Amino acid sequence: MSKIITEENKIKEVLEKAVENIYPNSKELEKVLKSGKKIRLYTGYDPTAPSLHIGHAVTLRKLAQFQKLGHEVIMLIGDFTGMIGDPDKASVRQELTRAEVNKNLKNYKKQASKILNFSGKNAAKIRFNSKWNDKLTFIELVRLASNFTVQQMMAREMFQQRLAKKKPIYLHEFLYPLVQAYDSVVMDVDLEIGGNDQTFNMLRGRDLMRTIKGKEKFVLSTKLLADSSGYKMGKTAGNAVSLDDKSEDTYGKIMSWPDSLIFLGFELCTGISLKEIEKIKKQKNNPRDDKARLSKEITAIHFGKAKAEKAAKEFNQIFRQKKAPSDIKSYKLSAKKLNILDLIFKTKLASSKSEARRLVQQGAVKIDDEVIKDWQKEISLKSGMIIQVGKKNFIKLNI
Amino acid sequence: MSKIITEENKIKEVLEKAVENIYPNSKELEKVLKSGKKIRLYTGYDPTAPSLHIGHAVTLRKLAQFQKLGHEVIMLIGDFTGMIGDPDKASVRQELTRAEVNKNLKNYKKQASKILNFSGKNAAKIRFNSKWNDKLTFIELVRLASNFTVQQMMAREMFQQRLAKKKPIYLHEFLYPLVQAYDSVVMDVDLEIGGNDQTFNMLRGRDLMRTIKGKEKFVLSTKLLADSSGYKMGKTAGNAVSLDDKSEDTYGKIMSWPDSLIFLGFELCTGISLKEIEKIKKQKNNPRDDKARLSKEITAIHFGKAKAEKAAKEFNQIFRQKKAPSDIKSYKLSAKKLNILDLIFKTKLASSKSEARRLVQQGAVKIDDEVIKDWQKEISLKSGMIIQVGKKNFIKLNI
Repeated sequence: MSKIITEENKIKEVLEKAVENIYPNSKELEKVLKSGKKIRLYTGYDPTAPSLHIGHAVTLRKLAQFQKLGHEVIMLIGDFTGMIGDPDKASVRQELTRAEVNKNLKNYKKQASKILNFSGKNAAKIRFNSKWNDKLTFIELVRLASNFTVQQMMAREMFQQRLAKKKPIYLHEFLYPLVQAYDSVVMDVDLEIGGNDQTFNMLRGRDLMRTIKGKEKFVLSTKLLADSSGYKMGKTAGNAVSLDDKSEDTYGKIMSWPDSLIFLGFELCTGISLKEIEKIKKQKNNPRDDKARLSKEITAIHFGKAKAEKAAKEFNQIFRQKKAPSDIKSYKLSAKKLNILDLIFKTKLASSKSEARRLVQQGAVKIDDEVIKDWQKEISLKSGMIIQVGKKNFIKLNI
Repeated sequence: MSKIITEENKIKEVLEKAVENIYPNSKELEKVLKSGKKIRLYTGYDPTAPSLHIGHAVTLRKLAQFQKLGHEVIMLIGDFTGMIGDPDKASVRQELTRAEVNKNLKNYKKQASKILNFSGKNAAKIRFNSKWNDKLTFIELVRLASNFTVQQMMAREMFQQRLAKKKPIYLHEFLYPLVQAYDSVVMDVDLEIGGNDQTFNMLRGRDLMRTIKGKEKFVLSTKLLADSSGYKMGKTAGNAVSLDDKSEDTYGKIMSWPDSLIFLGFELCTGISLKEIEKIKKQKNNPRDDKARLSKEITAIHFGKAKAEKAAKEFNQIFRQKKAPSDIKSYKLSAKKLNILDLIFKTKLASSKSEARRLVQQGAVKIDDEVIKDWQKEISLKSGMIIQVGKKNFIKLNI
């Protein structure tokens, strides 16, 4: 009995956690999942940047949930679509060359394996959509295109925005949703998962699947990591946590998120259940503490608990307790006394003496945690003395 | 001196006769033609029907004028574009299969050779646009498409009409102008000639040529064979003279044109100069006589003067003088007397006796030019007796 309940709970988490919408509806998908039938599902990732970011991790985690329930999971690398580029709100994206795309996708599997399981019995598969799209002939494309109308494409919100602003929509941008739709058909999937900004494209795949195969493909859109002000963590906004960031950067970047993203962060980026998240919410902790937990949870998913603990400790030392980090570099000097500007310049904490002077006058320079604002000051040097410039640059003297 | 004047007159005819518009303008093209430079030009013909029609002959004649001036003429067979189908005003065209297209284009060269010269020193070339479009890869197409905007395509009048009527525009219909534009670039032409309804597509080729090759391609649109009421001779309207019609049908069909098309017909479909046409106009002849001249001129272009004369004579006998044609078939009968219905049925002028009775009662049956309305009448048969049913079916008895 308990196993069944666990399965049901898992299905509930699959259908609800981080989910924005399910098409045609959640009930239908629930029925399929409860029937014991194993389905084939996928998410597409365009290699338009050298690494996956935490937004990608949301759908990877969703795929992982399905994988754990025994379903067949495909991570589709959009090495073809990446060359077109999914149209952007404001303007057409720069098309990438095949070489750029290949370079970017190199590490995707490695990064994704932090979340998905690529080995063992029910290993997730990696496929590349250039495999079938490279071979598509012009006339086959014409036949595919005849399944869509211009009016349908126009309905996409970002195109409406461009029309309204009299900004050009380039013809090839209408081909992107078509390729994504075709991917679904070629792989003959039962379900596509993607961020909510992919809903339009995913539904075109649902249309095409119905037309060509007479099959009702499910679509599951995940919530976006954005607060109500529209502040969005993403590749495009340039402020996202990347899956190949170092552990300390991962921790630090999440600590810089606005408080408004904390609980959404728990829902989208951690393995903590919805029930547990509700509990945390009700505790009304200091947001800083909740955020620290969130940072540690996510860092642990990407790097394991030990590194997460270490990153948290470092962060607390530097940013919270404002102390120098434990593993700062030593710098060997033979002098016994130096002017503060010479000291900063020689230890390479400034690129010139005039920069050093500016830093000192701004109050950005500390010696053993004491701010030095007098640029003419002579410093008596001691071994172990810690020199700090700005928030992040430290050295330890070795005389 | 006289040769130069003749050349100038020829250039004037090329630039004015049957011409709707020249882009960027007539002066520029005139300059090039007078410079003595030999240009490369083409018109595309989609093999969407088994034969070329008199509308195609207008552009073929325009190509022929350039050919006679020593320019390099290409008749492009749109065996690729034919499979897409140029979008129609009201609705999307049925896509043709390659087999249908191949079947249709078989006779195009033969038909076109009534007007263009495919042999000798400056022979017109035939090219097929499947040659380069079949090979075009999806990603190359994406790059091509990125040279056009959706807004640009939308501007096409027929698309505007569909939008207004909330009729679907299918996505592949936006690809047609793109292919036509690409044809221009691949063949690296200096000029494209086409019917006025092709202006939009031809100008897209002008755009693409400028973008890709930095070259100003000329566009010459010809007038359409349509009167002010919109009555149009064309493939789509289904009332056109085909280049593989028989000589008598060619003559007869033109005689059925409305009078409003007579002088446009002279301009678009004959070799008569604009000056000469003006003269005919001023004579204010009986329209029937002008039309007879037009029919004979066009029939002569397609079949030679002898056949044109013969067709005119036949037509006059049957339709004007309402006499039986000279070469009507004989029918051998051994009876001496027959009921009128038996006579009609036995000579296969009706498929049943009840049909024969209906024809008689309608007054559609004549014997030696006398209408017989009494279906019970007994006819005494004589050799040479002419039996006529309707306007066109005759037999001559042979007893």
